[in-house]
Amino acid sequence: MEESFVPFHGIKNDLQGRLMCYKQDWTSGFSAGFRILAPTMYIFFASAIPVISFGEQLERDTDGTLTAVQTLASTALCGIIHSIIGGQPLLILGVAEPTVIMYTFMFNFAKSRPDLGSKLFLAWSGWVCIWTAILLFLLAILGACSIINRFTRLAGELFGLLIAMLFMQEAIKGLVDEFRVPERGNPNLIEFQPSWRFANGMFALVLSFGLLHTALRSRKARAWRYGSGSLRGFIADYGVPVMVLVWTAVSYIPSGSIPKGIPRRLLSPNPWSHGAYENWTVIKDMFNVPVLYIIGAFIPATMIAVLYYFDHSVASQLAQQNEFNLRKPSAFHYDLLLLGFMVIICGLIGIPPSNGVIPQSPMHTKSLATLKHQLLRNRLVTAARKCMSRSLSLGQVYGSMQEAYQQMQSPLTYQEPSIQGLKEFKASSMGNIEGPVDEKVFDIEKEIDDLLPVEVKEQRLSNLLQATMVGGCVAAMPFLKMIPTSVLWGYFAYMAIESLPGNQFWERILLLFTAPSRRYKVLEDYHATFVETVPFKTVVVFTIFQTAYLLVCFGITWVPLAGVLFPLMIMLLVPVRQYILPKFFKGAHLQDLDAAEYEEVPALSFNRASEREMSSRTASFADDGEILDGMVTRSRGEIRRICSLKLTSGSTTPTKEFKTFHSFSDKVYSPRVSELREQSPSPRVGGKGPFSPRTGEVRPSNLSKTG
Amino acid sequence: MEESFVPFHGIKNDLQGRLMCYKQDWTSGFSAGFRILAPTMYIFFASAIPVISFGEQLERDTDGTLTAVQTLASTALCGIIHSIIGGQPLLILGVAEPTVIMYTFMFNFAKSRPDLGSKLFLAWSGWVCIWTAILLFLLAILGACSIINRFTRLAGELFGLLIAMLFMQEAIKGLVDEFRVPERGNPNLIEFQPSWRFANGMFALVLSFGLLHTALRSRKARAWRYGSGSLRGFIADYGVPVMVLVWTAVSYIPSGSIPKGIPRRLLSPNPWSHGAYENWTVIKDMFNVPVLYIIGAFIPATMIAVLYYFDHSVASQLAQQNEFNLRKPSAFHYDLLLLGFMVIICGLIGIPPSNGVIPQSPMHTKSLATLKHQLLRNRLVTAARKCMSRSLSLGQVYGSMQEAYQQMQSPLTYQEPSIQGLKEFKASSMGNIEGPVDEKVFDIEKEIDDLLPVEVKEQRLSNLLQATMVGGCVAAMPFLKMIPTSVLWGYFAYMAIESLPGNQFWERILLLFTAPSRRYKVLEDYHATFVETVPFKTVVVFTIFQTAYLLVCFGITWVPLAGVLFPLMIMLLVPVRQYILPKFFKGAHLQDLDAAEYEEVPALSFNRASEREMSSRTASFADDGEILDGMVTRSRGEIRRICSLKLTSGSTTPTKEFKTFHSFSDKVYSPRVSELREQSPSPRVGGKGPFSPRTGEVRPSNLSKTG
Repeated sequence: MEESFVPFHGIKNDLQGRLMCYKQDWTSGFSAGFRILAPTMYIFFASAIPVISFGEQLERDTDGTLTAVQTLASTALCGIIHSIIGGQPLLILGVAEPTVIMYTFMFNFAKSRPDLGSKLFLAWSGWVCIWTAILLFLLAILGACSIINRFTRLAGELFGLLIAMLFMQEAIKGLVDEFRVPERGNPNLIEFQPSWRFANGMFALVLSFGLLHTALRSRKARAWRYGSGSLRGFIADYGVPVMVLVWTAVSYIPSGSIPKGIPRRLLSPNPWSHGAYENWTVIKDMFNVPVLYIIGAFIPATMIAVLYYFDHSVASQLAQQNEFNLRKPSAFHYDLLLLGFMVIICGLIGIPPSNGVIPQSPMHTKSLATLKHQLLRNRLVTAARKCMSRSLSLGQVYGSMQEAYQQMQSPLTYQEPSIQGLKEFKASSMGNIEGPVDEKVFDIEKEIDDLLPVEVKEQRLSNLLQATMVGGCVAAMPFLKMIPTSVLWGYFAYMAIESLPGNQFWERILLLFTAPSRRYKVLEDYHATFVETVPFKTVVVFTIFQTAYLLVCFGITWVPLAGVLFPLMIMLLVPVRQYILPKFFKGAHLQDLDAAEYEEVPALSFNRASEREMSSRTASFADDGEILDGMVTRSRGEIRRICSLKLTSGSTTPTKEFKTFHSFSDKVYSPRVSELREQSPSPRVGGKGPFSPRTGEVRPSNLSKTG
Repeated sequence: MEESFVPFHGIKNDLQGRLMCYKQDWTSGFSAGFRILAPTMYIFFASAIPVISFGEQLERDTDGTLTAVQTLASTALCGIIHSIIGGQPLLILGVAEPTVIMYTFMFNFAKSRPDLGSKLFLAWSGWVCIWTAILLFLLAILGACSIINRFTRLAGELFGLLIAMLFMQEAIKGLVDEFRVPERGNPNLIEFQPSWRFANGMFALVLSFGLLHTALRSRKARAWRYGSGSLRGFIADYGVPVMVLVWTAVSYIPSGSIPKGIPRRLLSPNPWSHGAYENWTVIKDMFNVPVLYIIGAFIPATMIAVLYYFDHSVASQLAQQNEFNLRKPSAFHYDLLLLGFMVIICGLIGIPPSNGVIPQSPMHTKSLATLKHQLLRNRLVTAARKCMSRSLSLGQVYGSMQEAYQQMQSPLTYQEPSIQGLKEFKASSMGNIEGPVDEKVFDIEKEIDDLLPVEVKEQRLSNLLQATMVGGCVAAMPFLKMIPTSVLWGYFAYMAIESLPGNQFWERILLLFTAPSRRYKVLEDYHATFVETVPFKTVVVFTIFQTAYLLVCFGITWVPLAGVLFPLMIMLLVPVRQYILPKFFKGAHLQDLDAAEYEEVPALSFNRASEREMSSRTASFADDGEILDGMVTRSRGEIRRICSLKLTSGSTTPTKEFKTFHSFSDKVYSPRVSELREQSPSPRVGGKGPFSPRTGEVRPSNLSKTG
């Protein structure tokens, strides 16, 4: 995306781009059939549960002026609007922690002013929203988002990790509180006696760790050995919601002498309970706010505007990382404009506004990539099976699979020429087998898993459905209240952990703690480029700097009021990255550690091309195909070895190449290789991506079949 | 071992065999230096903790006549005697559950008789011990153990799994009881109020699952990526004891308003407390026992004798499985004789006798194999380093490593000619590299791990030390009482799980639940022969029969009195295996599913030879060396593929071989392969053995380097 600050230019581009594929957004959504429910449910829980507990927090801090009902309403309303007329439908909206902090601060301010008071708080915050919206309009119109390219991995991943830390902090705080008497609890109640408090705390530990453990396991179900494929698939798709149900059920097992209040459960008013409606009519009071405060509202508005501008854009960016090979265009400017409108609406009906949330947005994309993979897979398997039943040769089987693959391609593929689809099939090592093939001889499903590139089911349906379901939660409040709070804490921890894989910053931190003798294992895994091209010392220095910065940001969130400004700290990284870091790090190294588009020069663009290739598992090694043919390999690492071969020696004989692996895999962290890199750029991977071997959803092995 | 029933013949052989290596048993023990402490501590905990809780159980059931003090004393005494003058020092002795059940029955009987009463119970049980000893002497002298060969995997592994089930049952029962008022507890105590009981139960869940989880994790520490090698080594060696300490410490964290009794801890009298000595003087009362009862004591004696004969022999057998490539002879007859003497001693001083225990005995051997591996490794690494520092060629490095390896060989190697040691080094794929080698170029430690065969540090020191430490527990009672009972339950579960890997019966059960599409994964692992040579249907039938039999045995243990006779059920398997099963299964299949020495025919013996070879990672593929050279493989499965190549086609070109892998890995479960097997016996593995990839202690990859 080129940087231009011509007014409306960005918005116009975005609209054009998205309108082109708007119809397809819906058709492809519906074409997925009931399978769309898997990502929908997954994201519904991921966005509803935090919003509910933020609502609880807000209720505590605003003396019940705002409750979970309002936060849910806002999330649902904005979500539905965005999914229908929004730009990037992969983006998930919701009421986020910063908003809660901000509103708490505003409430305390309003309460302290006699001429405002808590009764005019919502009216005043309405004005704040209006100012915020105006600022957002300006930012959108003037193309502020076109500098989004300057938000490199450095900033984005640091922000992602910070959010993960905040979630984990919430989880721990929540668990500790389970042992205490809640702020607004009556200490004379039986369940708040020391013995029952202790029992409740211990029960909470069991429930939350139970949920965390089982939820994490269930996501990996596809890789399990036991149980039928369909069962494993179901667990992997719906495991997390199911586990929330299971552990909620478990929380009801102890009965008899146990008091009602144990374990503690969500407490939130039903939307139809008295007073839950007041805020809808806030617009009436807005002109009772003294003019001075209407103007003064501009100050918090600037903070929120900055916050939303960054938060919304980065969430959208993280949902559109290179590894996903999205085919439809982004819409940063337009989405920011739309956000402005939504902020006004929320302000006028007196509910806290929503914005793009992390980690839900990237989680959404990941789950849609899994969906797309399954769809392609099934289609291709059936196609292949049909041919095999007629015992055709592999070549013909390919033909039919290619056909099926082509049919599945959306009409608008300008990113990757669909020729790649064909290529990779030809490239398969199975190409060597002639004559009829039967099921016995090779496991189609496995083969196809290996052949398929990473693609994302880009559509609007899952987003619309999940937002609608969030709205449904308002009605389902009585059922939601059955969920023990401790299960929520477990879920928070789950979200924090689930957001880590694929974050190169996190992987570099782990690398620091990896024993030198074990580093070769990283190579054997599906790993990012910098692991091979950047000297280990540089990686260490870079990571330590980033970690220190992260801790500073985390520290700031603890500062009572300035806390909401932590995004400013992260935006500061943009100039730091652009002007200061290059003074300390080699360009090539920065390039690999933190690819920034504005630094790209034609020479490197080839790398980036092949980068996309690799990450989309469609790399071609025509030249050293024979080497690959000779090898049965299950790990990306071995591909690396072959690339490295070209770096360190031109030989192709197995024994020699074998030697060079040895010489390579131990030199990896010495600068030499990275120097070599300059001469002959090696194919690279844009990051671990959603398909870490851990999830087992797509085995990285596939690369071995190319060439 | 040939079957001979000539009196004393077996004992004579055993004595001769063990005397040959008696001195070496001690020297090699001390030569290991402080490292011997790792297996010692590991086994010490594994034998002390169950003995303590069996002691508690006994105390409850015998109105405090026998306590943990007596069980510990017996375990220590017998352990020390056995470790010094015993035959097979790998065998671990202890008071086992069957003994406890037996003594409980005897106590109830004695109490019911006015002319015996609980005061003459110990005296009477003294007589029972004498009769038992006499029977054991007869069995030992008449060479009853020479039919031990007829105890095939079928019986041994079924027994192992049964014990694991009993341990798991104890753990679950214990956890459930944490929620109840203990039998002898005073329900008016504060900690037995509903609220505190619930709290205690929940706390118990946290503690026991915490221990189970962390203990299981810590055993795999060597394979971790993080932390220095020495740290990982320490955690892997001492993790379990450390975790017991950690979780005991955790149990002290909640304080203040929590009553003393929470969590519940071991309650057992201190040995110096009044009345704990009475039983030492039981011999005085033995002649006060009415003659009728002295004779009647013969009846329980027969039951115990049968029990010990089987239990002791099988424990010893499981500690000496083929996979371990033990070099020193067994001593079944002599050990049984010695057991007889120990039973008398225990009887006379009024403590319950000990016998060989499962799973501790096999656990002992496994831990000693790890130790031996580390010792060899260090020695070879230093040797190799020295040469490299002088930048010699790989050939010379080998030379020095071979030398070092030879030096480490005990003088008495009649099982395997040490030539193999040499062979495997030559066989290494690194053999292709000429000229000086430097550390950078290859990771010695990794290479050596791959070269080393499975060997066991066979010595008496670890056994002696652990027995002495168990004795020390009697003095350390006050400290032991700090351990929460819930940690014990967690530890029981840990022992049950730890005893599963390597049990082919268990692995076959898992195979039944493995999805057909996933079975190829089993092949990629380090797997047993039957997986490839026996049709899947046969495996299923065989396993279902064995499982049904297991459940029957488990059911019997629930029968109040007959329970102690469950070993009889398992001995019944010997005739079943020998006369009935052959009617239903092909000989070759039975051979692979349940290798029985008495069935061996010369034709097959070659297989068994190469079986030992494979399992000891010293297989040689001189003929298809070039194929191996061309491959960098990390999984045993791929070696199989190459073997399979010889089964399915004679080709050696990579591409073709590659094809055959495809065709092979999916035919695996079709009978065809097993038929093929008859013509060309493929090298095989005697079982997963202690070195499953999971433990990461020895990567199975090594095979890839041979040939």
